[in-house]
Amino acid sequence: MASESGKLWGGRFVGAVDPIMEKFNSSITYDRHLWEVDVQGSKAYSRGLEKAGLLTKAERDQILHGLDKVAKEWAQGTFKLNPNDEDIHTANERRLKELIGETAGKLHTGRSRNDQVVTDLRLWMRQTCSKLCALLWELIRTMVDRAEAERDILFPGYTHLQRAQPIRWSHWILSHAVALTRDSERLLEVQKRINVLPLGSGAIAGNPLGVDRELLRAELNFGAITLNSMDATSERDFVAEFLFWASLCMTHLSRMSEDLILYGTKEFSFVQLSDAYSTGSSLMPQKKNPDSLELIRSKAGRVFGREDKEAVFEVSDTMSAVLQVATGVISTLQIHRENMAQALSPDMLATDLAYYLVRKGMPFRQAHEASGKAVFMAETKGVALNQLSLQELQTISPLFSGDVSHVWDYGHSVEQYAALGGTARASIDWQIGQVRALLRAQQA
Amino acid sequence: MASESGKLWGGRFVGAVDPIMEKFNSSITYDRHLWEVDVQGSKAYSRGLEKAGLLTKAERDQILHGLDKVAKEWAQGTFKLNPNDEDIHTANERRLKELIGETAGKLHTGRSRNDQVVTDLRLWMRQTCSKLCALLWELIRTMVDRAEAERDILFPGYTHLQRAQPIRWSHWILSHAVALTRDSERLLEVQKRINVLPLGSGAIAGNPLGVDRELLRAELNFGAITLNSMDATSERDFVAEFLFWASLCMTHLSRMSEDLILYGTKEFSFVQLSDAYSTGSSLMPQKKNPDSLELIRSKAGRVFGREDKEAVFEVSDTMSAVLQVATGVISTLQIHRENMAQALSPDMLATDLAYYLVRKGMPFRQAHEASGKAVFMAETKGVALNQLSLQELQTISPLFSGDVSHVWDYGHSVEQYAALGGTARASIDWQIGQVRALLRAQQA
Amino acid sequence: MASESGKLWGGRFVGAVDPIMEKFNSSITYDRHLWEVDVQGSKAYSRGLEKAGLLTKAERDQILHGLDKVAKEWAQGTFKLNPNDEDIHTANERRLKELIGETAGKLHTGRSRNDQVVTDLRLWMRQTCSKLCALLWELIRTMVDRAEAERDILFPGYTHLQRAQPIRWSHWILSHAVALTRDSERLLEVQKRINVLPLGSGAIAGNPLGVDRELLRAELNFGAITLNSMDATSERDFVAEFLFWASLCMTHLSRMSEDLILYGTKEFSFVQLSDAYSTGSSLMPQKKNPDSLELIRSKAGRVFGREDKEAVFEVSDTMSAVLQVATGVISTLQIHRENMAQALSPDMLATDLAYYLVRKGMPFRQAHEASGKAVFMAETKGVALNQLSLQELQTISPLFSGDVSHVWDYGHSVEQYAALGGTARASIDWQIGQVRALLRAQQA
Amino acid sequence: MASESGKLWGGRFVGAVDPIMEKFNSSITYDRHLWEVDVQGSKAYSRGLEKAGLLTKAERDQILHGLDKVAKEWAQGTFKLNPNDEDIHTANERRLKELIGETAGKLHTGRSRNDQVVTDLRLWMRQTCSKLCALLWELIRTMVDRAEAERDILFPGYTHLQRAQPIRWSHWILSHAVALTRDSERLLEVQKRINVLPLGSGAIAGNPLGVDRELLRAELNFGAITLNSMDATSERDFVAEFLFWASLCMTHLSRMSEDLILYGTKEFSFVQLSDAYSTGSSLMPQKKNPDSLELIRSKAGRVFGREDKEAVFEVSDTMSAVLQVATGVISTLQIHRENMAQALSPDMLATDLAYYLVRKGMPFRQAHEASGKAVFMAETKGVALNQLSLQELQTISPLFSGDVSHVWDYGHSVEQYAALGGTARASIDWQIGQVRALLRAQQA
Repeated sequence: MASESGKLWGGRFVGAVDPIMEKFNSSITYDRHLWEVDVQGSKAYSRGLEKAGLLTKAERDQILHGLDKVAKEWAQGTFKLNPNDEDIHTANERRLKELIGETAGKLHTGRSRNDQVVTDLRLWMRQTCSKLCALLWELIRTMVDRAEAERDILFPGYTHLQRAQPIRWSHWILSHAVALTRDSERLLEVQKRINVLPLGSGAIAGNPLGVDRELLRAELNFGAITLNSMDATSERDFVAEFLFWASLCMTHLSRMSEDLILYGTKEFSFVQLSDAYSTGSSLMPQKKNPDSLELIRSKAGRVFGREDKEAVFEVSDTMSAVLQVATGVISTLQIHRENMAQALSPDMLATDLAYYLVRKGMPFRQAHEASGKAVFMAETKGVALNQLSLQELQTISPLFSGDVSHVWDYGHSVEQYAALGGTARASIDWQIGQVRALLRAQQA
Repeated sequence: MASESGKLWGGRFVGAVDPIMEKFNSSITYDRHLWEVDVQGSKAYSRGLEKAGLLTKAERDQILHGLDKVAKEWAQGTFKLNPNDEDIHTANERRLKELIGETAGKLHTGRSRNDQVVTDLRLWMRQTCSKLCALLWELIRTMVDRAEAERDILFPGYTHLQRAQPIRWSHWILSHAVALTRDSERLLEVQKRINVLPLGSGAIAGNPLGVDRELLRAELNFGAITLNSMDATSERDFVAEFLFWASLCMTHLSRMSEDLILYGTKEFSFVQLSDAYSTGSSLMPQKKNPDSLELIRSKAGRVFGREDKEAVFEVSDTMSAVLQVATGVISTLQIHRENMAQALSPDMLATDLAYYLVRKGMPFRQAHEASGKAVFMAETKGVALNQLSLQELQTISPLFSGDVSHVWDYGHSVEQYAALGGTARASIDWQIGQVRALLRAQQA
Repeated sequence: MASESGKLWGGRFVGAVDPIMEKFNSSITYDRHLWEVDVQGSKAYSRGLEKAGLLTKAERDQILHGLDKVAKEWAQGTFKLNPNDEDIHTANERRLKELIGETAGKLHTGRSRNDQVVTDLRLWMRQTCSKLCALLWELIRTMVDRAEAERDILFPGYTHLQRAQPIRWSHWILSHAVALTRDSERLLEVQKRINVLPLGSGAIAGNPLGVDRELLRAELNFGAITLNSMDATSERDFVAEFLFWASLCMTHLSRMSEDLILYGTKEFSFVQLSDAYSTGSSLMPQKKNPDSLELIRSKAGRVFGREDKEAVFEVSDTMSAVLQVATGVISTLQIHRENMAQALSPDMLATDLAYYLVRKGMPFRQAHEASGKAVFMAETKGVALNQLSLQELQTISPLFSGDVSHVWDYGHSVEQYAALGGTARASIDWQIGQVRALLRAQQA
Repeated sequence: MASESGKLWGGRFVGAVDPIMEKFNSSITYDRHLWEVDVQGSKAYSRGLEKAGLLTKAERDQILHGLDKVAKEWAQGTFKLNPNDEDIHTANERRLKELIGETAGKLHTGRSRNDQVVTDLRLWMRQTCSKLCALLWELIRTMVDRAEAERDILFPGYTHLQRAQPIRWSHWILSHAVALTRDSERLLEVQKRINVLPLGSGAIAGNPLGVDRELLRAELNFGAITLNSMDATSERDFVAEFLFWASLCMTHLSRMSEDLILYGTKEFSFVQLSDAYSTGSSLMPQKKNPDSLELIRSKAGRVFGREDKEAVFEVSDTMSAVLQVATGVISTLQIHRENMAQALSPDMLATDLAYYLVRKGMPFRQAHEASGKAVFMAETKGVALNQLSLQELQTISPLFSGDVSHVWDYGHSVEQYAALGGTARASIDWQIGQVRALLRAQQA
């Protein structure tokens, strides 16, 4: 009879199970991550059973003691899985029975694998969210520190990969750091919804044996209990939310990586990746590839569209590695400030040229048109935009006069963008302050 | 020269644009949804320009007046699009110029299509979230009212589509209502992040002309301003969040629909859909198909994995229709309580039979095994589980005695599940109270 | 210096690599699947090098001999990985060098990891496709055999989960078998595109040392060589095609499973799953869950949207298990023909009633309307459709006469559908013949 | 009664339909694309009905004549939709009835909307595939012609965005053209599976009225008929296949676009997009954005993951536009051969330097290491790789001698890659010939 194999649901079955099917159905290869929280959950539940009069104090203590032994075996790497341990919950209870005998069979009273599994998962993910949040904060801090230190370096801001306007290098760093603060904000919200206890929901109908769910909640330090037992055991919104959080966070890291890959090409030469985050080629001896950044980018694809419990473990590992690698990359990145400066070209001040005319009273649309004509004239003549003579400019608009020469100053250009959020030094300082305040608030 | 066509960026171009490319690049077919918020945003920006001294009071009033005329034309359906209006922003400014002349050209001073587009989108989505939230609350309310009215109806709870345990019909309704309260909670969080103003961020570097972003924020009633101009104009996290919200909400509605489709089959016959939410077959005269439910389910697929602005409009419409149809379905659904009662079968009380033994002192694992043996014995003998004689039961365990007959009472069975969240009547009442309190809190 | 660790690209690097980064970059945990094909590819390449004069015959034989030893170690489970073996290719070459010394360093001449990796992957996938195709054929064969044996069993065909028309049970089986024949057809097409050799493409520019790619092709038994070296080393269309193939095949198996789950509910009771493909519940002793079918369905979700090399290994394993489990399920499935017969109800002949009128000369649209009125009349009176009296029918249309009683025969109903592809017995036989012919053709 | 509205399935319904539900269920907004094939299918079916004796010749002709009128109204834009026309099939039959009276009601005899809809879709997609294939061939031809004309231009080949090896510009073009030939091959396979006729399958059971499906097939020029009526009406594999084809083709075009966007940056300056495929900025007058390429890239995202009929229409339009824009871009693209030449740098010949040592007898792994040391030495000394003196090189290996100077010739470097598929001129010619032969074969 199948029950002799020790399966949790063996009573009514007579046929043998197809071994392919058995392997197919087994989750033990990935859910062993849960060993610690499974013990934690069972310890709390045995306390609940005792309070409800379903275990004597002695039985409870026997179970608690046995579970501690199980945990110790896992921690020491001496726990031995049986081929019949289809999941971590079966394995732990099987071992408990070996250690303490028949009393172990009382632990599952009124509990179902349904509420047990989801409780364990929430415990594990609550922990994981805390760890990931700390890594994320560390990355943001690293970026803000760097932004503060390098506030005076200018380089081209791009749109559509075309040089657009001069900006501060710190402005670029902060644009990514600010995106990451939304990720930490969201992670805290996800964690809040993870922190709700389903234990005591049974399979679907609830718990019929007088177990006090508030006691369980307090034991396991959850923020609240679930409202409906059917919903509690079947819903995995928090898994979907966590995976979505990871997707969005990876999108941000992926975009930052894409920029850095580009800035690190021979053609751009703005930054240089540390050897610690680069690899070579088995064929071409001169190659130094930005593999850390490419891996971050490609891991993004791996994170999207996963939907299962297995994904949670894998995505957690990925996020943990990615956040640490990103922190390493940013903190060791070398920048070439002279190349950055050289990449600023007068045509990037075409907007400033238009504003010059606006300040002389021309409506912006006409000024934009006039500046566009100047760009076209410079291109046609094969000179830089700031090489057009005053006479030439005046053929486009009589509003041009000698003071137009003041336009051609990159430092002056960026200092104009003083509205909050812009690339002026004062605004950068404000941004640094804001992000630091946000970090403090989130950590509170 | 291309600029004569009135394109916003015509100055430096000389070649004509490939007409396929032009159509390809045009977004006007879907972004006309934004006409109202585009006018709203431009009105606020012209006030900002006046405060910054870039418009005189007279110019500002001329622009405000012109924009009101533009809005009136849209509202009355008399606004005429030109073939060159590639997006709603171009169209409105083109029309403004026709109405008030060259002053219109001053409106875009220091603004970029980048910050304009994202401001408009946030304004529109803020509105949409409010509407969808109201529809969602209405649906939840309908469900809770129905759950309250039908608390005393029992029917089978299923897992893996197999009959599992008797539960209250209201317990099923509430399991879905509770899921939807998480959706409304999340929607409010998304809305909070939408409600941040990017206007004044220009293309990437910020606003160089002294426009006061706090004034713009107050004018447009946003909760905060964006921190970094590069991030502000490029990030679309809030779009991804909204689409994810819709996906998750649709998953819940889809699961509920799936249950109802099943409960409405001839084989289950628990519920009957109103004709208002059914359709027929062009071939088979007897057919009455649950098309409303199937459409909800299939729309779920449509919502997943969209990533663009166009998706926002389509998904909003879908969600609006789906929520209303779901409310209609739930409020008109007929239930067959006698079929529900008949579907309860003694084997669904096998868990209760195990608990009977637990109460007599047997460890749960052994009790589960014993009850499983009883199920197997009944199956083998071809009788219902409650038809086994006491003698037969005693061959399985000597703990069975005459009082085992009390187990075979469905009403008593559900009343056991009195732990919070379970299917007992008191717990149902508690759930109804909790969900109503949540609704009140969310609406505050 | 990093090169001492034996990395393939160590020469120009001086910094140490961040250990997290190293682990992050390593693919050895999953690409060890490739050990056999990697050896196979290297053996062929060493022959190519000898023909091109880059190895002496003695060196070639030394390498061939060494590679055989490497393979033997893998086959016997004695191969030991080093922590520095970042992928299977590095591991094998590192071991070769240990076994035969410096000559091993000549093996990679003119080859790049780029062409090596993709050659290995194609070799492995070619093999895998053959295995999966055989399993798929076995499943189809099982289904067709069963369809042939149970041709005379009728049961309800459903649309929208509503009873639609009586059909043969074999018609249902064949509808799924026919879908699977498209999958095997597609798999052969994918395999054809996999069977193209990239070896000799180097990193991107090609092979500069006179290696004869036609010789390599013949050695490794490929159908053709790739046309362009850049495309050859970077394209993974065949991976995307394979994963898409798996998605579509899983969709078919998932739909079949969904039907069987439903047919196996207490409410339908058409089929019963073998114990070998069922599992129980840890809480409810009476439960017997169709876990094999649910796993097939849930694995479908796992297969969708994967895009990487790792996915290939996992998806291959999944498909292999799923096809075998599906074959097992189908071959052991018990059917309840009496329940099937009882589920046929007169309203499912409403289409036949309409055709009765069509045969009497009424246009179909009117006949459909008339039959619909009969259904409504029967529902209103609370009787079965075939219980309406002739007089009652004649109030709907005077064309009804005594021979209408012939309509109420399910066997006669299905026999009408004699057009090719329909559910008449002759058509079922034709379908069985067609599918068998297809299988023979595909296997040729 | 609902039937008065002319709905196809009105007979048994009494309640009114919720208008939101009605709109929700309507597909007419997108399936009007099918007007022509719907008429075509109905004409064939009426011929089938006549052959089966279900229509007289006169009735058939009346229907054919009426359908021609319907088609004419669509072609001339005079067809008027009713609010009750929920789909194109209802609309056409409703109009036919208005034009020819009750005989119209006979057209649907034995047909179901199920087989009608899928027949129409297959007819439409068959046509669409032909059109898209022609556009794809045109693009490939344009690319091959350009590759032939510009065979002698060298530029850097990149991996990981780092300069890797010198290659011919034509080699890059052909790498993308070759990928596209796989797309046309796949499209022809998809079209083959689309070209199978489902008409005559009814709803699920088949056609009971003696309609000859072979006759229908011949009338509509399909390659085969479907094998099983249930499968025929429910399967949409061909839709999934078409959408997957589009995804993969878009991936290729997207990658090509990504390269071109990069090559068109100020920093690379290898190519310049025609004004016809560029757009400007509303703020920055100097900007010229590669919008055509960015749109191709972003449309790729739009194509992925769609799964419905609506997607087919949208994706077809997208592919049609994208293929034409890509053809336009390639044929008008200007290249800067002098910038390309200047971007070739001596370190890209590090592989050649290693081969130099291999030719002198050093095993490749040692040669790779030695060349890597040379690169490091040059970097450390701040000189180009070819500026190292012979003495310096000899400190790395005594095998270096005076003839090492021959290594530093880019033209010579690319000519080495003469193995088929490489970047040598002869191989390029071979590739051009192969692709042209493939095109000829596919068009046959």
